[in-house]
Amino acid sequence: MTTYDPDNIFAKILRGEVPSQTVYEDEATRVIMDIMPRSKGHSLVLPKAPSRNILDIAPDDLAACIRTVQRVARAAKTAFEADGVSIQHFVEGSGGQMVFHTHWHVLPRFEGEALRPHTGEVAPKEDVEAHAALLRDALR
Amino acid sequence: MTTYDPDNIFAKILRGEVPSQTVYEDEATRVIMDIMPRSKGHSLVLPKAPSRNILDIAPDDLAACIRTVQRVARAAKTAFEADGVSIQHFVEGSGGQMVFHTHWHVLPRFEGEALRPHTGEVAPKEDVEAHAALLRDALR
Repeated sequence: MTTYDPDNIFAKILRGEVPSQTVYEDEATRVIMDIMPRSKGHSLVLPKAPSRNILDIAPDDLAACIRTVQRVARAAKTAFEADGVSIQHFVEGSGGQMVFHTHWHVLPRFEGEALRPHTGEVAPKEDVEAHAALLRDALR
Repeated sequence: MTTYDPDNIFAKILRGEVPSQTVYEDEATRVIMDIMPRSKGHSLVLPKAPSRNILDIAPDDLAACIRTVQRVARAAKTAFEADGVSIQHFVEGSGGQMVFHTHWHVLPRFEGEALRPHTGEVAPKEDVEAHAALLRDALR
């Protein structure tokens, strides 16, 4: 098991050192928009406590994450009038993980639309903000 | 929300009407091998109680599922000497769901190897059995 690096980008976001579009927050979790969305309204559920991924996360944090994932999946379906949702969690680089703070992808899906490849391209700020607003409303 | 069809293939497996390679079982969940594996050792975590997906699953069943997913992810990494793991949950057809009983894919991942496309081709029985045996051992 590789150790947790407290200077990863999500840790910085959680500490408020890097801005993000937060759409939901509770005691144990926070939900932000993915700035490189693979589908319209792509968001990320993060535990607040440090962990690298599902291999080392504490049971309570994992339980809190999945409760929030359920809540966000329901809200995302409404907010974006999505036909479906894909939920993904990646473990280590070979598993698809790019930031080494536990996170769950919640991807609204639309009939006939494949997920966009992960190109590293950042979406226009106004799109991310508009989608954040829709998701925030649906989460209320 | 579409309703739950009790004649889906996973419901039949859970009732023992269709055979499967079960690798783990507890009060609320069961883990079987995917017979159309997208990576070596691909398994599926199922709640025993009926639900269609994360949108309608009861909180306790969801919590039980994710505990089992964690357990299986750890075991799979050991059993198959995997470099990583990908965890996926699909909601409705547009989200990638093909069987409408809640299930979590646990996919061992290997450096430089992409997931195989879902072709619908069933793996040789002896491979599925051999991988089931490895995962069963690691889960003990």
